[in-house]
Amino acid sequence: VFKDQGPAALQYSVTEGFGPLREWVAQRYRSRGAKATADDVVITAGSQQGIDLAAKILLEPGAVVVTENPSYLAALQAFQASEATIVPVESDDEGIRVDQLAQVLATQPVRMIYVVPTFSNPKGLTLSLTRRQALVALADAYRVPVLEDDPYGELRYSGEELPPIAALDRSGMVISLGTFSKTLAPGLRIGWMLAPKAFKQHVVVAKQSADLHSSSISQRAVIELFETFDYDAHVTRLRDAYRPRRDAMLEAIERYFPAGTRFTRPMGGLFVWVELPSGLGASALFEAAIAEKVAFVPGAPFYPRQPNPHTLRLNFSNRPVELIEEGIRRLGTATRQGSQGRSEIRSERAV
Amino acid sequence: VFKDQGPAALQYSVTEGFGPLREWVAQRYRSRGAKATADDVVITAGSQQGIDLAAKILLEPGAVVVTENPSYLAALQAFQASEATIVPVESDDEGIRVDQLAQVLATQPVRMIYVVPTFSNPKGLTLSLTRRQALVALADAYRVPVLEDDPYGELRYSGEELPPIAALDRSGMVISLGTFSKTLAPGLRIGWMLAPKAFKQHVVVAKQSADLHSSSISQRAVIELFETFDYDAHVTRLRDAYRPRRDAMLEAIERYFPAGTRFTRPMGGLFVWVELPSGLGASALFEAAIAEKVAFVPGAPFYPRQPNPHTLRLNFSNRPVELIEEGIRRLGTATRQGSQGRSEIRSERAV
Repeated sequence: VFKDQGPAALQYSVTEGFGPLREWVAQRYRSRGAKATADDVVITAGSQQGIDLAAKILLEPGAVVVTENPSYLAALQAFQASEATIVPVESDDEGIRVDQLAQVLATQPVRMIYVVPTFSNPKGLTLSLTRRQALVALADAYRVPVLEDDPYGELRYSGEELPPIAALDRSGMVISLGTFSKTLAPGLRIGWMLAPKAFKQHVVVAKQSADLHSSSISQRAVIELFETFDYDAHVTRLRDAYRPRRDAMLEAIERYFPAGTRFTRPMGGLFVWVELPSGLGASALFEAAIAEKVAFVPGAPFYPRQPNPHTLRLNFSNRPVELIEEGIRRLGTATRQGSQGRSEIRSERAV
Repeated sequence: VFKDQGPAALQYSVTEGFGPLREWVAQRYRSRGAKATADDVVITAGSQQGIDLAAKILLEPGAVVVTENPSYLAALQAFQASEATIVPVESDDEGIRVDQLAQVLATQPVRMIYVVPTFSNPKGLTLSLTRRQALVALADAYRVPVLEDDPYGELRYSGEELPPIAALDRSGMVISLGTFSKTLAPGLRIGWMLAPKAFKQHVVVAKQSADLHSSSISQRAVIELFETFDYDAHVTRLRDAYRPRRDAMLEAIERYFPAGTRFTRPMGGLFVWVELPSGLGASALFEAAIAEKVAFVPGAPFYPRQPNPHTLRLNFSNRPVELIEEGIRRLGTATRQGSQGRSEIRSERAV
């Protein structure tokens, strides 16, 4: 890109992002059933910036935003920075409880619904097709925008592909975020937002205030890469690499964690969510785990309100199966040493 | 960077930015008299993001922010997005009128003072040393943070170097922004914020919500470049390239613009600010200028409140002297064709 497109790649560019990359994103959405054109796409600094821009254009102090409970920590932080009121709604194995969501919508002036519908952060769970449809219907009925945050959707290891929520949207209420951070490289800081017409121009104005535009070089590097690099084959390789790690982690948890432990069985993504038997606090476990030279992310900070101190988030993507098995074995050992106390909740960065 | 530092350059990184680049920035401030360490520096997506982050941590709906009148358009937009109240203070050949600023501070609860003290956007003017000292004293007395936005400071063509406002600060009230956008490449989207301790951690939290961190590759590419590339010599070349363009523009304005035209004489930067004789509106001139195949940025959008419709911003950096002379000659021709009407003010993007 430096060599062939130097002047354009180094100069200021349009806020919306590099045209060919926006077209690539739109095509990807179209292939998954959404009516998308390049004109609906804004390139962002990772999907994190999409969350921030959506908060900027939709939230204000006191505005109500609904999230899953628990939900992605840095999204909660962005909403808190807007001084919004976060109303958490429980999720189960089929994702966010749309029945509870309906109750919230009926009783409160909700300004935005934030969901990670596919292999969620932190629980690793997936919103079922029925609930996706129900969610879109509710958003339409109450005219409440849905922010679909989908950084993990490409990383499916089992189960059937589901359409993104944006593909079910018929009334222009779904804003959809994606990123190359989990499939190419987070250091690029390149993600995108698919925004219906009613929101798009506000997003562009907010993006212009935020950073004028995303790195021209990184944007052009990605689309240049795709000239010679089979992205789909690469994603398949990632799936094949991560699938056995997920399996190894789930098997090891079953084997080594104490009776009464509950945990999610993700069909994709990066995370397993564990709830320890009552009496076992994640913070106390953390100390014991560090002594065993193994770490995890305590679950409490992912709760917008009352945290469940017995929860932890485990990431299976980054280590070979042997180390995963050994790590979970040590964590299991640590659970037998962890004291019962509800020690102080520690704040962690979690991506 | 790809070849030698691939894994680190492509992975997530710390929100504050790449250590060696932060140290380079701190060293640059130290060489200009500021007490700065790498720990005081946050790498941003251009100085634009610094403005946005400062607005996020300091402003809220109704908060009062003081700016020069006129001031940088995209800063005004960021403050407006925060629903802050912008109080403009006039500037003259020595920069912002600190006497007027003192009056505002004495009568209103100001939360932030935003200035482009060196070769300002849009007027091209420079805050004198006496006024820099007075500004810092006022900020200290009223405990009001100053946001020093300094994207152009390296581009001095005449006059004596002045210390950045951050170098005069003794009470930790000055946040200072810089960027490589005017000296290396805007497409990199790499700038920085020097933040006193009281603000630094809030900035990091806001930056984490905004985009987690800036592009690892771009940050490492810059510091890698500096291993073999003499940045100071490069800046000297830029100064030598732009100086005759500035001179050509000022001479041409004197020659071709109508009697009664007022204009600034910048000692550096990119911009000359022109005020046409009353009766000549910039919008009408714009139409006539386009007919002559020459464009400019109308000045009105740079005013937070009542715009002066007779103003225009000219940029001398981007064309050789012959074309600058010809362009200004045509603009002069257009002024004789421009109608007298105060036509509609058009909104322009301006960087």
